[in-house]
Amino acid sequence: MALIVQKFGGTSVGNPERIKNVAGTVIKEKLAGNQVVVVVSAMSGQTDQLIGLCRQISDNPSKREMDMMVSTGEQVTIALLAMALIDQGHDAISYNGWQVGIRTTAEYSKAKILDIDTKLMRESLAAGKIIVVAGFQGIDMKNNITTLGRGGSDTTAVAVAAALKADRCDIYTDVDGVYTADPRIVPDARRLDRISHDEMLELASMGSKVLHDRSVIFAMKYNVPLRVVSSFAEGPGTLIVKESADMEDVLISGIAKKDNEVRVNIAGIPDKPGVASTIFKQLADANINVNMIVQSVGKEGHSQISFTVINTDLDEAKKVMAKLQTELGAESVTYDADIAIVSVVGVGMKVYAGIAAAVFDELAKNSINLEMISTSEIKISVVIRKADAEKTVQALHKRFFLQA
Amino acid sequence: MALIVQKFGGTSVGNPERIKNVAGTVIKEKLAGNQVVVVVSAMSGQTDQLIGLCRQISDNPSKREMDMMVSTGEQVTIALLAMALIDQGHDAISYNGWQVGIRTTAEYSKAKILDIDTKLMRESLAAGKIIVVAGFQGIDMKNNITTLGRGGSDTTAVAVAAALKADRCDIYTDVDGVYTADPRIVPDARRLDRISHDEMLELASMGSKVLHDRSVIFAMKYNVPLRVVSSFAEGPGTLIVKESADMEDVLISGIAKKDNEVRVNIAGIPDKPGVASTIFKQLADANINVNMIVQSVGKEGHSQISFTVINTDLDEAKKVMAKLQTELGAESVTYDADIAIVSVVGVGMKVYAGIAAAVFDELAKNSINLEMISTSEIKISVVIRKADAEKTVQALHKRFFLQA
Repeated sequence: MALIVQKFGGTSVGNPERIKNVAGTVIKEKLAGNQVVVVVSAMSGQTDQLIGLCRQISDNPSKREMDMMVSTGEQVTIALLAMALIDQGHDAISYNGWQVGIRTTAEYSKAKILDIDTKLMRESLAAGKIIVVAGFQGIDMKNNITTLGRGGSDTTAVAVAAALKADRCDIYTDVDGVYTADPRIVPDARRLDRISHDEMLELASMGSKVLHDRSVIFAMKYNVPLRVVSSFAEGPGTLIVKESADMEDVLISGIAKKDNEVRVNIAGIPDKPGVASTIFKQLADANINVNMIVQSVGKEGHSQISFTVINTDLDEAKKVMAKLQTELGAESVTYDADIAIVSVVGVGMKVYAGIAAAVFDELAKNSINLEMISTSEIKISVVIRKADAEKTVQALHKRFFLQA
Repeated sequence: MALIVQKFGGTSVGNPERIKNVAGTVIKEKLAGNQVVVVVSAMSGQTDQLIGLCRQISDNPSKREMDMMVSTGEQVTIALLAMALIDQGHDAISYNGWQVGIRTTAEYSKAKILDIDTKLMRESLAAGKIIVVAGFQGIDMKNNITTLGRGGSDTTAVAVAAALKADRCDIYTDVDGVYTADPRIVPDARRLDRISHDEMLELASMGSKVLHDRSVIFAMKYNVPLRVVSSFAEGPGTLIVKESADMEDVLISGIAKKDNEVRVNIAGIPDKPGVASTIFKQLADANINVNMIVQSVGKEGHSQISFTVINTDLDEAKKVMAKLQTELGAESVTYDADIAIVSVVGVGMKVYAGIAAAVFDELAKNSINLEMISTSEIKISVVIRKADAEKTVQALHKRFFLQA
């Protein structure tokens, strides 16, 4: 008997009819002889509706109270799914994050999971019950309700799978797997049968919306076998696994685009040790995630630093940067929201050379201007104008996938 | 510095604008130098909307999951009210039932409060915070979310006031006090400045919708001074207090009508000891509240028993009665939903005689047929046809209030 964790996103549980369908999928796994824990998001649209209500009360609502509010979305879904399962003759029980001891950091709206107490879930599984757990939410050490931020239900699912040492964590979504590029942009993009955690992580953090990047980190850290499958169609999906020998011949696994980042440029800062550390420490203290960073030396011993932040963190980042500008005596701080980041990801880059050169060559051929470049062992990211983003993804996909 | 508990019902917090108004009322009490704990219901319509969603999933939804579901209504309101208070510059914090240890019995949808842990609330009050507590909900000993049933937020407010030994519990509602009869039926009904717990209890349990009867029992048991005031208009409201000497001259305090009860009649049962006890024990075991009970002896040593139950308990009651009919060998069990109960309530009945006679006389004059009669020390209730209910209330109000 295997223990399977299944996660269904907001679209999959978007209305009562779909919730009944999800119940069918869950029951199929249960009838196959497995123990099943289901993690669900809020019904699609629900969280935005709740946030809308908050905005009618306050322009700058208390973050603690926002989390108190939006966590009700998942509570509604778990109750409805458990009802549907019970209605179809199966023993099921729903739990909020606090009821199964999902302890998080005390960072409202972007809490991180610290620990999960599996005692109650193990008892319920032993009693033959299907467990339905609320994604996205937990409690801090003082029993305040916290949320994990957008996409956090994936993280809940993987964390629950890790804590219960589940045999597999299936992420049900509205696509049938991980593709070499977004099929809406590249119609001949191919579904991957398997991909390594590393590559999936780069794809996720670089804009592939199939999985939340934190969930992939969790899966990698605790070696949880992940599978991305469709809620709406049968199919094998994509397995996300540890890197294995037979994957060595894969060159590029995917091309991702991210267009919700803003480039921040701070210029005319003294070119001396500790400056970068000051900037990024203060941003980290304000809980702002920085993505790409590029530093260059300008005239007369002054340098400039460019980096990107997600647009929802921009207001917060502007406050930090205004303070830093005074502190460091910087000449200027500018913001550019009109950018996109396109990334080529593949574990093969470790062994094959020349990928970066091929990327730059392809962009040059298409007259696309490169504004920032950042590379890792398995990824090359470029910042370009937002208007060029789709063209860039299409060109790179053609270059790396259709030549084969 | 006094400690005041304020309770706002669903209409008072029906939309963001009204929630801001409630915040204003709360802040006024705080600025008067008092510590304030606020208990709120779900926004009006919200609970019905959530129940509607459940019905789309199952015709007979799991009661545990229903409570999980509907308790989100209050969680939304506490967050919004706390946000509004914070937005207006006051330190406020919201708590769900489980967060302030509102422990209840394990009876889903009609749980009873067993205990409230006041430690966290006392700490928050000592820190100068306004506390916003979710009405209607609690947790059982196994941490399952429970609800107290319709009107349960009143009970939460009084229980919180009792646990914190509050100086007063103000129930804000859409009427400006307790009236001698429903002003929609009797236009010249009068607002009472004060009424005893006993009388309020009889009025509440007999259909006056101003206060939930369980909240009055709590207030009486723990001697919490209650006040009913309007959310929408200034005014002294009605104080609900222990009976005091100067109230002796009050004769009748109010006339109430209840039209959501169904009369159950079981006929042809053996007229021997223990039969009534069997019937009402089984009903109590099924958690069905029985209101009026009348027993009469029929032909040949057989008797019949009539009683009323609230219509929401009817399905459950029918199951119990079908079993009892076989067990007791009863001739028939019949149901009549077309009834109303009209009650005359007044502490003065203890000392003045002739009230019952006056009630019966008034009904006879108006050709209203009496179908059941039940009396207590401070109340006379009659069962009549539902169609006669308003006329009965009007006639009795005229008889007892306009002669003075």
